[in-house]
Amino acid sequence: MGTTELPNSPAEVRGLIRTGQWRGVTAGVAPRYVQANLAILPQALAFDFLLFCQRNPRPCPLLEVIEAGQVEPALTAPGADIRTDVPGYRIYENGELTAEVLTLAEHWRDDLVSFLLGCSFSFESAMTDVGIPLRHQEMGCNVPMYITNIPTIPAGTFSGPMVVSMRPIKRDQIVRAVQVTSRFPATHGAPVHIGDPAAIGIKDISRPDFGDPVEIRSGEEPVFWACGVTPQAVAISSKPSLMITHAPGHMFITDQRDADYAVF
Amino acid sequence: MGTTELPNSPAEVRGLIRTGQWRGVTAGVAPRYVQANLAILPQALAFDFLLFCQRNPRPCPLLEVIEAGQVEPALTAPGADIRTDVPGYRIYENGELTAEVLTLAEHWRDDLVSFLLGCSFSFESAMTDVGIPLRHQEMGCNVPMYITNIPTIPAGTFSGPMVVSMRPIKRDQIVRAVQVTSRFPATHGAPVHIGDPAAIGIKDISRPDFGDPVEIRSGEEPVFWACGVTPQAVAISSKPSLMITHAPGHMFITDQRDADYAVF
Repeated sequence: MGTTELPNSPAEVRGLIRTGQWRGVTAGVAPRYVQANLAILPQALAFDFLLFCQRNPRPCPLLEVIEAGQVEPALTAPGADIRTDVPGYRIYENGELTAEVLTLAEHWRDDLVSFLLGCSFSFESAMTDVGIPLRHQEMGCNVPMYITNIPTIPAGTFSGPMVVSMRPIKRDQIVRAVQVTSRFPATHGAPVHIGDPAAIGIKDISRPDFGDPVEIRSGEEPVFWACGVTPQAVAISSKPSLMITHAPGHMFITDQRDADYAVF
Repeated sequence: MGTTELPNSPAEVRGLIRTGQWRGVTAGVAPRYVQANLAILPQALAFDFLLFCQRNPRPCPLLEVIEAGQVEPALTAPGADIRTDVPGYRIYENGELTAEVLTLAEHWRDDLVSFLLGCSFSFESAMTDVGIPLRHQEMGCNVPMYITNIPTIPAGTFSGPMVVSMRPIKRDQIVRAVQVTSRFPATHGAPVHIGDPAAIGIKDISRPDFGDPVEIRSGEEPVFWACGVTPQAVAISSKPSLMITHAPGHMFITDQRDADYAVF
């Protein structure tokens, strides 16, 4: 089943994932509904990670925390099961990727706490809605992401640099891009930097640390937003005994609409 | 030393409090600087309380969390000491008020986690700046507060109804009041209700549960905002072995300016 034939309802898409009838990259799936990054950690690390997210809301915009012993995102997707409704998972042990799996049936433990974090799809819709084109979408590739020299605020064992995503924006559309993304603080919000990559520690804009390079054309500036890769990178670098994430691009689809998270 | 003779610098005011040279209600002290509600809980309850705040940002807008073993609000007031720099504290044991003290020297424990939460002074300044008068300020009394039938989202042992504050606003200023307070989500933000008190479970508007009654005049509607009493009430009702708060009206004064917390 291709993406274009999928139902629009998040619950129906999650049902297809849960029963193994569809699995894939979720970009463009269930348009207008909020998709989420996933990070699952043992309860012993949960306070520090929650505090890290509270201190760094731009890269770590928390949508929901599912407490230990529970598997239902009751606030953002009632009836869903976080163990089965994501179309791909990654298992990290002591900071090393040890498996990619399609369900968490064999990895679940009752001491695991699940964190759902906003992703960039919401604010990208806000930009394309007002006629700001997105180069990586035009090119059909991943958004380029870079490790910066912008520090996050540490919490417990969690610390590290902010990871940002970059979108080239025409100079006469930069103000509008700031305005429309500012409405979505729950999905990374306003840019963290506009222009010179070197000012935030990026040495070579043509070589992203994650994702794919995209062309910056004459009349455009690179604009940088805090990226949801940050909390995953920070968590993995602390080498927790177990950490589970979604597979890249395989997000959790909530029942919340983008508009539900607009500040006004 | 009266309030009017106090220095404008938050650090200097905190120094006077720490050395016992001034203690009092902090309304109007260090204008334009953010003041904070304080809740201190044992580490065993810290994850649940942090999660409660994350789930209920309107009544519980977290400004900073000071981890167990630390006493400095390093993000909002570097150099301050949470044990000495608040002009009055209340000690609760098993949900009962057992003492009012001027320092925490004799009550401090290394397992205590301190939560600083935004208060209404910031958004009240935003309203008076645009010419919206505040009745309780005109009357020189406390803002009236009410227990509503609006549920909070529970977390662990913490649950309970939302407490709101009420300000009568002229009908032709209500839209402006919504606009200017919406800019301050870190200090309760936009109203949670406008008009009919019964719709949110308030039976008698002339008898607030906390604070003082104020007159609602012809041409005015009661407008309700989430109140920082909510997290304290919720925490106390869970009867923690120890909980410490600021004394009513005796807030912690941070180095952050109101404008630092405006969303834009």
